[in-house]
Amino acid sequence: MLTQGSSPGFDSTEFRKALGSFATGVTIITTRTADGTPLGMTVSSFNSVSLEPPLVLWSLANSSLSLPAFRAADYWIVHVLGIDQESLSGRFAKRGEDKFAGLEHDDGVGSAPLLRGCSARFQCRTAFQYEGGDHVIFVGEVLAFDREDHAPLVFHGGRYAHATRRDAPGIQPRSAHLEGSFGEDFLGYLLGRSHFQFFAQMQPLLAREALSDEAFHVLSTLTLKPQLPQTELATATAGIATDGGQAGIRALLASGHARHCEEIGDEPCYALTDTGKACALRLVAAAKNIERELLARLGPGEAPVLKSLLNRLIGAIDPAAAQLWERGAA
Amino acid sequence: MLTQGSSPGFDSTEFRKALGSFATGVTIITTRTADGTPLGMTVSSFNSVSLEPPLVLWSLANSSLSLPAFRAADYWIVHVLGIDQESLSGRFAKRGEDKFAGLEHDDGVGSAPLLRGCSARFQCRTAFQYEGGDHVIFVGEVLAFDREDHAPLVFHGGRYAHATRRDAPGIQPRSAHLEGSFGEDFLGYLLGRSHFQFFAQMQPLLAREALSDEAFHVLSTLTLKPQLPQTELATATAGIATDGGQAGIRALLASGHARHCEEIGDEPCYALTDTGKACALRLVAAAKNIERELLARLGPGEAPVLKSLLNRLIGAIDPAAAQLWERGAA
Repeated sequence: MLTQGSSPGFDSTEFRKALGSFATGVTIITTRTADGTPLGMTVSSFNSVSLEPPLVLWSLANSSLSLPAFRAADYWIVHVLGIDQESLSGRFAKRGEDKFAGLEHDDGVGSAPLLRGCSARFQCRTAFQYEGGDHVIFVGEVLAFDREDHAPLVFHGGRYAHATRRDAPGIQPRSAHLEGSFGEDFLGYLLGRSHFQFFAQMQPLLAREALSDEAFHVLSTLTLKPQLPQTELATATAGIATDGGQAGIRALLASGHARHCEEIGDEPCYALTDTGKACALRLVAAAKNIERELLARLGPGEAPVLKSLLNRLIGAIDPAAAQLWERGAA
Repeated sequence: MLTQGSSPGFDSTEFRKALGSFATGVTIITTRTADGTPLGMTVSSFNSVSLEPPLVLWSLANSSLSLPAFRAADYWIVHVLGIDQESLSGRFAKRGEDKFAGLEHDDGVGSAPLLRGCSARFQCRTAFQYEGGDHVIFVGEVLAFDREDHAPLVFHGGRYAHATRRDAPGIQPRSAHLEGSFGEDFLGYLLGRSHFQFFAQMQPLLAREALSDEAFHVLSTLTLKPQLPQTELATATAGIATDGGQAGIRALLASGHARHCEEIGDEPCYALTDTGKACALRLVAAAKNIERELLARLGPGEAPVLKSLLNRLIGAIDPAAAQLWERGAA
């Protein structure tokens, strides 16, 4: 039999880190005490055990205040969390007595609280309680379960993560004709292709508003701040317009979408007119429709991953690039 | 005590699906039999149990051919796999006797095979074997462990997945000045910004080769096939060049990077000259350096996720768009 302290001591911080390299989902496990109090906590030590009979397991620290209640409980419910339930995970990871305050839930097996909006729920009857060092291992027989399609909330390396399915072999990047050429796996190709294709979807909108590409880029930039000095306009359109946005701003001034405002120092300064704002709002609404339809064709949970990776890439290319946007938001 | 069949029968396919909604890492667990044979199998039912003493657990089906050996073994090793070890996972998930053939490994505790290149390895002595329905639950005391920084291999919904860390609250997308404006969270902004910034990194290379942007886009396209008819050039540069690539091809013909080749039907057809190929190869090498340095600034394992999501986005915008590249690879 194993007794505490029988193992050679090693650095417990390093041991936790090593354990954290195994990714897990995140669950909330609930029960109801004999006096009717609902209990629940966030648990990542869940896993499946058996199909026939259907069994699952998880473990709970001896030091947990909830241990006596779970030891005494006949029934408990495992809720597998989806990507949108990070705040719920945080709520049930803290000690405190108001975890269920204001939280809509139903009563499940043994009156245990049944939370909503989860990826899967397993309503269990305790089958075994096993010794597990400083934890107790609970094995439960699954009496009922249900499932909804959600991208999973993942925990890895001490942090929340997204999971994105890997490409099937059939859609691995293809190589091109010329050895070492700009194949489909080249980031520059992927960024250019996706940008130009996305922008092509927007061009009918620009045509309807009689805006050139340059004028549109400047108009978008002017939505960021109440007024924009010439140098900031040039910075914001660098790489997009070769002329510091001059052709675009001239077109917008001519069409009444933009106006001059008071110079800052010697520098010209621009702002949107009411006409320009109305035009921008129409374009934003239409463009967001395009975006929504497009992102809906990705897998569940993939759109926020794509956006956050593009954000990180932009920061990696040019850490200063996001500054205008930050100032614009201030 | 739980007996098989005590639970109400329910659809086992649906039950597996529900269990699959809990994401896990992927491990390979190895041991050595009394007669010296190395054994190993892919296991996702791993989890941590206790810190003091350090315990981990996993479960193995009663029907597994390896069960008697693990029941008899005093020692076994858990290998947590990284994102690059999907094929190793596949190898150890199959039945067969040559799993270790040609696989470099060391000897760990109890002479169990110690595989290389893993995210973490836990060398264990069996502490408990518990009943778990149609599986046996093995609990092991960790005698030694090590860890390397790798992005994790994840299993979810019956498939391999990547895990990408979630954004910290501090770098959530910021909103812009005008209510509903083109903020940083708008996909069109993210694609445009990242494309133009990436391309700006390449522009010094183009200047050195005296290539205009248009000429470069056409040159890139010509690397895809030995010869390219006019209409395919126009398709490939649609949205990038407004003139079907005509300005670009004229510049390349004039500079000797491209040449006319035999017409297909009545259609002009182009190919790279040796000069053009040499120029393309120089650009490719330099561009891949830029790409490599940039992607290294993302988190571990994030570059392939970004690329595969961009690939999927391109397919979602225009399923026909990738066709030229597919034909080019054929």
